[in-house]
Amino acid sequence: MSSIAERVAQAAAQVEAALDGLLPHSGGPEMRLMEAMRYAALGPGKRLRPYFAIETGKLFDLDDASVVRTACAVECIQAYSLVHDDLPGMDDDDLRRGRPTVHKAYDVATAILVGDALQSLAFEILSHPETHADGRIRADMIARLSLAIGARGMCGGQMIDMLGVRDDLGAVARMQRMKTGALIAVSFELPTIMAHASDAERHALMAFAQDLGLAYQIVDDLLDLEGDSAVLGKKAGKDTERGKANYVTILGAAAARERLSLLVAQTKDHLDPFGSRADFLRDSVDFVLDRRN
Amino acid sequence: MSSIAERVAQAAAQVEAALDGLLPHSGGPEMRLMEAMRYAALGPGKRLRPYFAIETGKLFDLDDASVVRTACAVECIQAYSLVHDDLPGMDDDDLRRGRPTVHKAYDVATAILVGDALQSLAFEILSHPETHADGRIRADMIARLSLAIGARGMCGGQMIDMLGVRDDLGAVARMQRMKTGALIAVSFELPTIMAHASDAERHALMAFAQDLGLAYQIVDDLLDLEGDSAVLGKKAGKDTERGKANYVTILGAAAARERLSLLVAQTKDHLDPFGSRADFLRDSVDFVLDRRN
Repeated sequence: MSSIAERVAQAAAQVEAALDGLLPHSGGPEMRLMEAMRYAALGPGKRLRPYFAIETGKLFDLDDASVVRTACAVECIQAYSLVHDDLPGMDDDDLRRGRPTVHKAYDVATAILVGDALQSLAFEILSHPETHADGRIRADMIARLSLAIGARGMCGGQMIDMLGVRDDLGAVARMQRMKTGALIAVSFELPTIMAHASDAERHALMAFAQDLGLAYQIVDDLLDLEGDSAVLGKKAGKDTERGKANYVTILGAAAARERLSLLVAQTKDHLDPFGSRADFLRDSVDFVLDRRN
Repeated sequence: MSSIAERVAQAAAQVEAALDGLLPHSGGPEMRLMEAMRYAALGPGKRLRPYFAIETGKLFDLDDASVVRTACAVECIQAYSLVHDDLPGMDDDDLRRGRPTVHKAYDVATAILVGDALQSLAFEILSHPETHADGRIRADMIARLSLAIGARGMCGGQMIDMLGVRDDLGAVARMQRMKTGALIAVSFELPTIMAHASDAERHALMAFAQDLGLAYQIVDDLLDLEGDSAVLGKKAGKDTERGKANYVTILGAAAARERLSLLVAQTKDHLDPFGSRADFLRDSVDFVLDRRN
């Protein structure tokens, strides 16, 4: 497992170094916004989505620098979504990974603008020829990312979460696929577009991503129930407290654990078409789901 | 002038019809978000930026449907920026063009998500082959738009406005260029990219756009001073009340009016290279600046 930990850490280091160069600077008063963008995008984090993109890039022997740019775009979106989700009008969280959230460290206006500008930056990064020499590929990547994070994807999922889903496993699953699953899936999909992967390869990775996202959510819901705030990195028991349905409140912990175990095997099986080429990705499942990592 | 009014109205009708088809639908609970996106994007408005894009498209004989898509993308950005600017943590406005702002008609969470999803939709529209057959052109358009609206453009300008600029004409001008000028300029620039316009043509239109944006701002500042809320469509005297510097508070009304008059002539002169082909665009300056229209 330690080699996976090393690969995740290496991907994180690559993305942080690249983001440091991609995040804007200024000598003007708008520097406050730039500083807050750095606070949001370069703060503590495992950078799992960038790792997924970079590991997928390796599967297809993609150019390292190009895939790292793609990983940076995904991380900008992830950072933007966390900043906006934490806002007072949304989940109203004061802490994120042990630090004050952006609206606490700065203010609400700055936090809104940080999210807005990080979203723009993600598209700016993808649109640049250094991400891929072929403009049609860049436009395709942007089409996929914009769909994944818009009203039919991440934003729509957050809307459902705000409205509250109750006692219906199908509705909870759909919400999770939109709110968090779509961005995880696109982290794998963007490199497949860069690599001109076959439909079969792309579908296999999409199925892998979907089940991995679902498994990740069940682990999250189990931790929420078990109340381990230290492992979760945020306040535990929040779903229960807010009366929100999740996999564990609906299925019960034992059945959720059983489903998780089946799902982990199924997730790995999706990678069969790649054979041993996908060993690192296959082994990463347990690492990703072990939230103590 | 009536022919300009008709052309502006026709552009607005085209963009509203196209947006109606481009804004997403859903049968799920996220429909609330989709409805609020429509409320924001299809509410009353002159659609000046879409008009600029469509009129520029005519200058280069571009395909109508493609330019209308580009105009829709620009209008999505304009709508998103207004929804976020109106939020309690930002300008905290209850009314926009005589209707409750999105966070008043819905709630703050929905308004944040509306802005976020409208931004994504703009890039989704531009990335689609129906906007332009050449992927490299689409990626170039996205590069320009993302730069114009990010931390070095619109978001950075709003950050400066939130911090408050005081008593420095250069700083006020820079803030205006970033906050509103960049999106106006890109409304002209995107069609020039679609048309493979020459550098000279693009530069002429960018200079036109920059001066037009500045003139528009001076008119806005004069109306703010003169307190005509009915014409302005929002509460007048807000800058003075908030102690914000603008062209009129710094120059005084008489000098601001004089500068405006010179600027109007200069704005039109930028179109000389296009000769009579640009007559409609030239005539539109007075129409755009007459806020009673």
